[in-house]
Parts: sequence; structure tokens; C-alpha cells
Amino acid sequence: MKPRPNHKPKVIIIGCGFGGLEAVKALSRAAVDITLIDRTNHHLFQPLLYQVATAGLSAPAISAPIRHILRREIKRGNLTVLQAEVTAIDAADKSVVLDDGERLDYDHLIVAAGATHSYFGHDEWATHAPGLKTLADAFDIRARVIGAFEHAERCANPDERAAWMSFVVVGAGPTGVEMAGTLAEIAQHTLAQQFRRIDSKLARVVLLEGSDRVLGTFVPALSQRAREQLKRLKVDVRTGCKVTTIDETGVTYDGHEGDVQFSNHLPTRTVVWAAGVAGSPLGRSLAATAHAELDRAGRVVVQPDLSLLDHPEVYVIGDLAAARSYGPDLPKADPKPVPGVSPAAKQMGRLAAANILRRLKHEPTEAFRYRDYGSLATIGRRAAVVDLAVPVFGALRFSGFFAWLFWLFAHIWFLIGFRNRLVVLIDWAWAYMTFERHARVVAEAPHRPGPPLTPPLQDAPDTQPLA
Amino acid sequence: MKPRPNHKPKVIIIGCGFGGLEAVKALSRAAVDITLIDRTNHHLFQPLLYQVATAGLSAPAISAPIRHILRREIKRGNLTVLQAEVTAIDAADKSVVLDDGERLDYDHLIVAAGATHSYFGHDEWATHAPGLKTLADAFDIRARVIGAFEHAERCANPDERAAWMSFVVVGAGPTGVEMAGTLAEIAQHTLAQQFRRIDSKLARVVLLEGSDRVLGTFVPALSQRAREQLKRLKVDVRTGCKVTTIDETGVTYDGHEGDVQFSNHLPTRTVVWAAGVAGSPLGRSLAATAHAELDRAGRVVVQPDLSLLDHPEVYVIGDLAAARSYGPDLPKADPKPVPGVSPAAKQMGRLAAANILRRLKHEPTEAFRYRDYGSLATIGRRAAVVDLAVPVFGALRFSGFFAWLFWLFAHIWFLIGFRNRLVVLIDWAWAYMTFERHARVVAEAPHRPGPPLTPPLQDAPDTQPLA
Repeated sequence: MKPRPNHKPKVIIIGCGFGGLEAVKALSRAAVDITLIDRTNHHLFQPLLYQVATAGLSAPAISAPIRHILRREIKRGNLTVLQAEVTAIDAADKSVVLDDGERLDYDHLIVAAGATHSYFGHDEWATHAPGLKTLADAFDIRARVIGAFEHAERCANPDERAAWMSFVVVGAGPTGVEMAGTLAEIAQHTLAQQFRRIDSKLARVVLLEGSDRVLGTFVPALSQRAREQLKRLKVDVRTGCKVTTIDETGVTYDGHEGDVQFSNHLPTRTVVWAAGVAGSPLGRSLAATAHAELDRAGRVVVQPDLSLLDHPEVYVIGDLAAARSYGPDLPKADPKPVPGVSPAAKQMGRLAAANILRRLKHEPTEAFRYRDYGSLATIGRRAAVVDLAVPVFGALRFSGFFAWLFWLFAHIWFLIGFRNRLVVLIDWAWAYMTFERHARVVAEAPHRPGPPLTPPLQDAPDTQPLA
Repeated sequence: MKPRPNHKPKVIIIGCGFGGLEAVKALSRAAVDITLIDRTNHHLFQPLLYQVATAGLSAPAISAPIRHILRREIKRGNLTVLQAEVTAIDAADKSVVLDDGERLDYDHLIVAAGATHSYFGHDEWATHAPGLKTLADAFDIRARVIGAFEHAERCANPDERAAWMSFVVVGAGPTGVEMAGTLAEIAQHTLAQQFRRIDSKLARVVLLEGSDRVLGTFVPALSQRAREQLKRLKVDVRTGCKVTTIDETGVTYDGHEGDVQFSNHLPTRTVVWAAGVAGSPLGRSLAATAHAELDRAGRVVVQPDLSLLDHPEVYVIGDLAAARSYGPDLPKADPKPVPGVSPAAKQMGRLAAANILRRLKHEPTEAFRYRDYGSLATIGRRAAVVDLAVPVFGALRFSGFFAWLFWLFAHIWFLIGFRNRLVVLIDWAWAYMTFERHARVVAEAPHRPGPPLTPPLQDAPDTQPLA
């Protein structure tokens, strides 16, 4: 059947992260009818989300309304944006189901639904150890961190006070290292001398890591530098530690000193989870209706062109895709999987869009080739590690203050919108000069996990302001 | 008994709004031991709160951590800041009780606990018509407004869609006028052409007012100007309307056309309450233990020096005080009560602090004299009314673009902190040029009618999730 002149192929894109947004932009001038579905109203610059969690930036500085970013594409007339949750994908029926029961048909589908936290089968830990994926997560962690110091100031029991002043970050990838470094900075500088009954400098920040080094995806020399920089910030880094329990009393883990195994309990009220990542539940929907294969982390194993084996009209990109990079000499793939980073998601978004257009023209699709420009991670004020892949030259690795400056400008450069860049630059310059974190503002009532506070003793001498 | 040399008089200040903050500053160099208690961790610049609710500003732009504002005073050693909710004042025992049961003694007390919404005996309306007093309120309203347009875009039923695209503001004081004007601006400009299925310009903004004119505290000529400016922004202003019901279907009110009475129902899913104000529940605590007299709005009737008749060591200031202004010729007071505005609260905070110091020196206290510098109200982009009391010259009244500029700079001038002023100026310049409202970002799931989003009781602490 020849296509009717008025019937444009329908493309549905699920998720407006880095991958989904690039796919929309790449398709927006083509003769297709695009529907973009996201469960929030904004695109989020996730690499700086830890700054919202640690009160260095406000939410609007690192996020922008989807309708604003794509206002020109919407005006052009072939893009519909819906704020909705996709509850299921029916690949056999070529449709997706929304939270209100609405069913939308597609001719081509791009699933860019991203990843969520994984607690390795211990979902009960989530209450005590929030992860960091959404703005709501960041506000939750901000409220817990700021509330912990406030509780400590009001607390008469020394054990309880010590628990409020202990912070544990689980997982020493880039997010965990950034969180731990910034938490230490807050305790050492931002809050210094702002309390009467406690000394914020005595707060303890512990970074737990299961493997034997921090920033495991970097070369060992940079891991070592990062560890030294964390130590300088007074972060207590403990590698080779496997968390066994997280509850309202704190974190228990198994570790070893040489050959001696031991189990340790860290009493704390504030835990940040930066360890496990799992593909969006929509992966299971694809496994059920499109026979997609999932890897151990719940990510969808894709073909070289990012589509599914039995459903070449369905593409999976970004953090939800278990993809490999292919050189021009298909079928030999890189042995390493493509990492879950924003440049990879953007590149996949562009390729999935291009492959849809190729199929519409009955041309063969192309395989994904990941261009790795390097990795950056920051540790706190003035410290970072940089590992760049420079064409011809090879690897360029450095750490310290210049790495931090490089990290700063690279991140601000990729922020969406001129206003955001300007405001973030001002915020950083301000924070750099004053040590203040301007977004230290919590709208909710203070967070209170676990057991209720015991009423402070009336006459405890160390809690009386001044006698 | 002579005071012991090491025993400084204890002053407790409840609330860190405009009044409480001024009182702390005025006392911080005196030989007193101050404890400041607030249930949030921040001071809020309430006159710009409607900008957070309408996504023009981020929360940190109009708020600052109390510990940061008062860091020098804390360092000086006679100020303790506690984030806590005061649940009761025991004036007979000269102590206050905190949420965890802790009891703090005082020699002098300043109650600056402010006001909350009043639904005139209809607390059940709170679920459907949130008021605007806290950052949590502002995030709630922001989520509802942005979510309403998103729901309308997804909605197939024309009646339901029309209800999502109708916005009702109850109360045409400064907050109601600002909210209605800005909502209209969002529909007419910010969101224009950013949807496919709906036309945001067809959204309807209704401003309901019980009396016969908007901005009732201004002179009639300025009320008339404000009404014209609202009309130009396509706000449907209806005066002489008494709300009888607010529920999930909309707002019902009684009105009249000439002598003909009628009842009307406005179908809407989004109502903002800007009508009634009631004193903090701590007023009732003072009535019970200090024989304080409350007025109809639950405010505490104070003596000319802002203290209580039976308890000269207890001062009530700001929105919680029913105060009058006295000239030098006591006891003749101004016939009009002091309005609930920030300059009045600041002046009361300074006087209460000074009167405490006078009493410590066994000097007579002074009566409150309100210095009224005038009133400002803005209506939307480029429109405002200004009524200044200029010494010698008399009243200076103007409206329109220059009034808006005056309003803008006056508000930015009084914002706390250089960074905030700079960021707010940039945000406004940006919004002015682009019509974009950069904080149009909602962290939670979209608002859905049915289960309440806000705690239905006015007295409940802010516990809803942060938007």
C-alpha cells in the first residue's frame, strides 16, 4: 500500500534525556510525525545533579522545560510533547500505553527511558539510602544533609549526635566521589562556625567502595590522585568493602585488612546511594513483547544499529541500552560495552534518528560507533581528574586545580541555554570566593528517619548555650 | 537579688521573618543571650514568593539560610539558632516548648511567628485552593499551574480540558493581583505555541474579590488603574463576589448585577487562595497562658510598646500582632491598625529589641510609631501601581511602566545578599527580553485531582514533597 500523502510515519520517543533530545532534534526537520513522551516536564543536566543535592546550584540552573528547549520544533508542526508515564510497550501491536490508559500507535519507536538505582536485591535500603537520578532525589538528599546538622545541633545524646554528624556515601564512581568531596567541603568550610553546640568540622564523611579503588573506570594513576585529593578533604575512603545492611541505625559492611575479614557497623542517619544502576522497567516490557534480551543490570541488548533483533522498528538508546561500539570493520565490536555517559547517549540518539530515516528511504542502517572524548570527574573545590582522548596525540591525563577548571568550563559549556550558563558561572564564582552554597534552602519540614529523637536532657551542661 | 555577673538575660525570638531577623540584629551586640527558633532553615523574602509560584524565580533567589545571614552574630557568641517548631508558649512558666518536648526558659520573649491562611471556617477548601505563605506552598502552586496545561494537552473531553485551562484566584489584594496578572502572562506569552493540541492563549484567568474593588488598601483611583491593567492582560476581574464552595469541580460564588443576586459555578481544577489571613496558632497559646486578647483574625492585641498587658516581658510583633501606631502624644493612637507588611514588621522588630534593652536598664519602654513609606503592587509585565508617602511633599501616586520599574528596583534593593540581587536582576532582564520563565521546572509527578496534595489543616507543618 502506498502511503497516503497526509500520513507521515509516526515516531514515538520515550524519554527526554540526552539521547531522546538529540533524537528529536535530528528528526524534527524530516517528514515524520514525532511524539515525545517524558514523565517530567524538564530536561535535566544530570552531570551537575549532585550540585543541586549539595545546595550549590538551584534546580532551574541545571534543568529546562522540554517545551521551551523544543519550542521551535513544536512550532514547526511535527512534534507533540506529552508529559506522561509510559506504563508498557506493546511491540507486537506497535503501540505504547500511557498511565491514563491511552494507547499511542507508532511506526518507529526510540526507547530512551534511562536507568534507575539498583540496590542489588535490597530495595528496603532505598528508604534510608536515596540515590541520585531525579530533581526530587536531589531535593531529598539536600533536605537530609542540611537537616542532619540541624538535628545534631539540637541533640543532647552524644551517640545520637555522632550519628547525625556521620555521612556515608556508598559507591566511589564519579557521583559518589563528587558527593563525598562536596559533603566534606560543606562540613569543613560552608558550615564552619555557623553552629553553637556542634563543630561542623568534626563531621565524618565515609566513602565505601566494593572494588579496590575509587573511580574504577579511570586509569589506576588517576584513581590514586583522586584518593589523595579525597584524603586532603578529610574524606574517610574505604575500598574493598561490601555493604551487607542499611537501616535506620546505619550501614554494616564486610571488609578485610590483608587476609583478615571483618564486619563493621557505621552508625549514621544519612546515607547516599551511588553504587548500582539498573535499566528502566520498560526494558522488561520489551523483553516480554519484543523478545528483547536483557543483561544482568536489566539493560536491553541491542543490535549493532541499536535496534532489536525481531523488531527493527524499535531502537533502544542511552543508559537503557547494552550497546557495543563497532569500527568500520563490522562485525568486530569493541570488547568493552559503551559506558553510561551523556556523550554516548547523545551519539546513540543521533544514530537511531538517522537509521530511522535510512529505513524510510529503504537504505541499510549503520552500526553504532562510540567516539570517546575522555572522562572527567571532580572531587570538591579545586580538585578534579581529567583523562582526555585527544586525536593523534593520544591520552592526555592531568589532575588538580587545572583539571578542576577544565571540568568546570566543560560542564558549563554543555549546559543548555545561555541564561543557565551565566547563572551557573556566577554561582560558582560566588561559591568560590565565599565558600557559601547559596541553595542551602529546604522547603519541607526537616527529614527524620528511623527512631524518634529522644528528648534532650534539660540540664545537660554541654547543651546549655551559655551559663 | 543582684544579677550574677555571668548570667546574661535570656531572650528567645520565635520566627525569622522580617520582624524576628531585625530583632536579632538589634540585640546581637547587647549583653543578652539570644536563641532564635524557626521551623525552616531559611529567611524568606515573602513579597517575591508569587514569582517562585509562577516559575519566574528559583527558591534560592528569594531565600537565604538563617545561619548564613546571621553567621557573624553566631560567631560573636551570644546567638543560638535552632530549627524547630515551637508547639506552645508557657508564659506563666516563662518557657517555650519545642516539637521534641524540649523546654527552653526565657527572661524576655519576642513572638514573631507570622500568619497563615484563613479559609473563613472552611478548612476543607485548603486541599483545592492552596495559599501562598511558604516555599512549599509556592512549589505546590507551581506544580499545579504547570501541570494543568500538561493535563489539558492530554485531555480529550472538552469540558474537562476547559476546566484544566481555567484558573481562579480568590482575593484581589496585592498577592491575588500579582498571581492573576502573572498567570495571564504565562498563558498569553510564555506558553504560547508550545502546545500542539491546545492553545494556551485560550486559558481563562478569573480574579474573584468580595469587596467592590481590587487592591482595597490603595486609593480608589489606583484600584481603577490596576483593574484596567488586569483587563488589558485578559484577566476576568469579578468584584462583589462571595465564594460559597470550593471543591474538585471548581468554585461557586454569590454575586450580584445591580440588585439582582445570582449564584455562579466556575469549573476549574486550579484555584489559588489569596483571601484570608489568620495569626499563627501560637497566638492561642498566648491567650491561654498570658491572658492575651486576640482579634477576629487571631492576632494578638498588644500594648503601645508591643508587649502584653500582664506580661511586659513578652512582645508580639509582625503579622501576628494587632498593633496600632502612636504619635508622641500617647495615648492617642492612629485609628487604622498597622498593616501586615514587611516595613511594619521590621520596625516592630527594632522597637521590641530596643524596649527589652530599655527594661534591662530600668528605663521606660517606648510606644510603637509606624512610619508608612507607601505601598507598591505589581500586576504583571510592565504594570504596577505606586502610592508613596513622601515627607513634606505628601502623597506621590503613579502607575504603569515607570511604576513597574520602581517596584522592580525597590524589591531587588531589599533582597538579602548581593548574589541574590544580581541573580534576580539577570532573571528579570532575561524574562523581560524572552518572555521565558526559567524556573518552569516541576520535580514531582504531575498534580492529579483526588487524593489531597496539601495537608488540609492550616496548622500542619509543610510536609508535602518538594516540587
